[in-house]
Amino acid sequence: MDVFGEFLGTALLILLGNGVVAGVVLPKTKNNNAGWIVITAGWAFAVMIAAYISGNIAPAHLNPAVSLAFAVKGDISWATFGSYVVAQMAGAMLGTTLVWLMHKPHYDEATDPAGILGTFATGPAIRNDASNVLSEILGTFVLVLAILSFGFYEMANGLGTICVAFTIWGLGLSLGGTTGYALNPARDLGPRIMHAILPLKGKGDSDWSYAWIPVVGPLVGAVLAVLVYGLF
Amino acid sequence: MDVFGEFLGTALLILLGNGVVAGVVLPKTKNNNAGWIVITAGWAFAVMIAAYISGNIAPAHLNPAVSLAFAVKGDISWATFGSYVVAQMAGAMLGTTLVWLMHKPHYDEATDPAGILGTFATGPAIRNDASNVLSEILGTFVLVLAILSFGFYEMANGLGTICVAFTIWGLGLSLGGTTGYALNPARDLGPRIMHAILPLKGKGDSDWSYAWIPVVGPLVGAVLAVLVYGLF
Amino acid sequence: MDVFGEFLGTALLILLGNGVVAGVVLPKTKNNNAGWIVITAGWAFAVMIAAYISGNIAPAHLNPAVSLAFAVKGDISWATFGSYVVAQMAGAMLGTTLVWLMHKPHYDEATDPAGILGTFATGPAIRNDASNVLSEILGTFVLVLAILSFGFYEMANGLGTICVAFTIWGLGLSLGGTTGYALNPARDLGPRIMHAILPLKGKGDSDWSYAWIPVVGPLVGAVLAVLVYGLF
Amino acid sequence: MDVFGEFLGTALLILLGNGVVAGVVLPKTKNNNAGWIVITAGWAFAVMIAAYISGNIAPAHLNPAVSLAFAVKGDISWATFGSYVVAQMAGAMLGTTLVWLMHKPHYDEATDPAGILGTFATGPAIRNDASNVLSEILGTFVLVLAILSFGFYEMANGLGTICVAFTIWGLGLSLGGTTGYALNPARDLGPRIMHAILPLKGKGDSDWSYAWIPVVGPLVGAVLAVLVYGLF
Repeated sequence: MDVFGEFLGTALLILLGNGVVAGVVLPKTKNNNAGWIVITAGWAFAVMIAAYISGNIAPAHLNPAVSLAFAVKGDISWATFGSYVVAQMAGAMLGTTLVWLMHKPHYDEATDPAGILGTFATGPAIRNDASNVLSEILGTFVLVLAILSFGFYEMANGLGTICVAFTIWGLGLSLGGTTGYALNPARDLGPRIMHAILPLKGKGDSDWSYAWIPVVGPLVGAVLAVLVYGLF
Repeated sequence: MDVFGEFLGTALLILLGNGVVAGVVLPKTKNNNAGWIVITAGWAFAVMIAAYISGNIAPAHLNPAVSLAFAVKGDISWATFGSYVVAQMAGAMLGTTLVWLMHKPHYDEATDPAGILGTFATGPAIRNDASNVLSEILGTFVLVLAILSFGFYEMANGLGTICVAFTIWGLGLSLGGTTGYALNPARDLGPRIMHAILPLKGKGDSDWSYAWIPVVGPLVGAVLAVLVYGLF
Repeated sequence: MDVFGEFLGTALLILLGNGVVAGVVLPKTKNNNAGWIVITAGWAFAVMIAAYISGNIAPAHLNPAVSLAFAVKGDISWATFGSYVVAQMAGAMLGTTLVWLMHKPHYDEATDPAGILGTFATGPAIRNDASNVLSEILGTFVLVLAILSFGFYEMANGLGTICVAFTIWGLGLSLGGTTGYALNPARDLGPRIMHAILPLKGKGDSDWSYAWIPVVGPLVGAVLAVLVYGLF
Repeated sequence: MDVFGEFLGTALLILLGNGVVAGVVLPKTKNNNAGWIVITAGWAFAVMIAAYISGNIAPAHLNPAVSLAFAVKGDISWATFGSYVVAQMAGAMLGTTLVWLMHKPHYDEATDPAGILGTFATGPAIRNDASNVLSEILGTFVLVLAILSFGFYEMANGLGTICVAFTIWGLGLSLGGTTGYALNPARDLGPRIMHAILPLKGKGDSDWSYAWIPVVGPLVGAVLAVLVYGLF
């Protein structure tokens, strides 16, 4: 059941997260070009909603980097880690497909291949492997360190998920401007695969040369966070 | 008393919700053209305020799709469901009338029939029945699944309503750009009827050909959410 | 001590509330022309901060309309009501004076009399007594009804003040575009008096013909809210 | 361990806080020119995230003005105060260095020396020592008075940090437009020192003539807040 929860939750996360990007980027939507506050708030509440729903039946990691942190800490087994990653990848692929179906008429009018790709996967504002991967490492390091820290407070019931959402909002606002803050390998790789597969009109290439950064950066950042949290 | 609560709450919901749309869309207001973050935050806090107030005396569904979900689950009787829907429709009609009275001088200066209709009922960014109804199904599916899920957490007193508000905010940001996210048959149909009735200067038709989508989509989405929640 | 609390709290409320208006309206600030979301969020957190601070030693009404509601309900005596109103008026006059001192170089560069007045008191988007007073009645009705309703939930400690802040945010977003949402006689009249008194370069008249609306409207709305709450 | 916490927390605070300024100010980022709501929300969540993480092992002052308030109140010794200030300064210098590394390609394309300095330290919108220092005094006065007041409520676990974040958001919105609201000597002086040291292409001078204001103003404001709180 927890594996189904990770699948469902990640599907909802990407439906809502890539949904706000699609709305802002694609032509003729009601929120076209609505700005960074809309993008970042959209992703924040996407995490909140997906976590509350999947949290009924799963730990609601919704992110291989978060699952890796708990595996490295010893809270979940490596077999569980593997099953979660598969579920998260599958969920991300489903979620982005729903975004596409729902925005089909808008995709059909889109003419900018970079914009279309941006509704699936992240990309750098200025391409620079060192700075880009550092962005993803730092963002995910802070995210995972925050998630581990929330456990310390024995928060009032239900509040922790709002804290995670506000953390995502803050990370997007503060550290998202360089790479679009994947912070989550499944969030980037799953939709990128779908971008390659789906019959999108006028799409360009899926920028595979960049694809390792939003996978490796978050995994490194998550492990660093576990190491620093171990000092506490 | 609970029927009165659903009436009052839905009136407040639509006063505040259509109020923000009127402010952003109608000419010469202080928030004219204030953007998507204003619209979506306005609707989110509209739900919050209406739910806190009506929650004193009613379950505060404020939405036939939500009431349908609880009827399908067996939490309320079909007679109660029917009385709630009538109260919600009447409330929505009152609420939108108050918006009109309060913005009367601005309506009198409005010249765009589509904009005027938009302060009453929703409409598609690109007209496409399949994509439009899918938008309303998906949005309401996530809304109802979230509402059902919040019960799981035994949240700190008062926090659940904030979670619902943030969920509405997120749904507007992420899934609202295609159809304006009715997610609620009474929210759309009640004001659309008033648009047809009220003596609005320079109004166009009430777009009845679209009216089934924000009714059917939310009802389907709500039932799907109950089915998926049944798997948990 | 509670009278001092109402004085201090209202001073902080107007320092922060008129502060955001001054920042957005006056020339050469860093948040010049920053938009409706900034104005409405600024007032929301102004209420939150002022209420938390003054709530240590006072009921933190910070608003004669709210005090009137509690006097009509019988929760405070009319003598207490009178002392609170005096304190709230004095606080509002101090708060707006601090805004002026802090923004002195920006006031000195301001050339639009309506903008200058707007950093003190509210004004209508379109002047229409009936619609304008209805705006203030409806806004304050919802505000007071919400405040009375929050008591019902025995909320987790500290959460109620956040709910009031979000309510103010919502009211500004949804109902603020017609009159600038005074919702509070002291918030409008106190600073309007200071606008008449202070030696502001290039100021116009203080628009006394409008001054009754943000006094009478909120008081009427508050009493209506008590009456409706009495039905619950 | 608490000294390490203040160091780590302040590093995270400045990484996230100057991160949002860098994103908005530097050229070619995804959030370039994203507006005041993005800046102020970014700083608010920066405080929240840094406080939750460092709060595991430290009091999470993250600000010499806040530490001064607790030293004046007698809650921490002056030796502790001194060690915290050193840690906060060192943290701020590390945090701003990480912002620089992460945004290196964007700094390399920046051509406006004032903008570059703005991603490190604050500066006045209109240079006027009296008004500028009053801005920093008032802002920090409200901040510290709010922090002291929150203790009164025995808030639900975890909520207090959100209240601090919303307070920072409100202060930025309402009082930040004149000086950029340092409110924190370490936040300004630490990064200003790094601006002088780091090999930034095309940087101008570090505006040392202004540097005393965001140090003295916050310290004065903090002491005033302790005095006023003593009246409660």
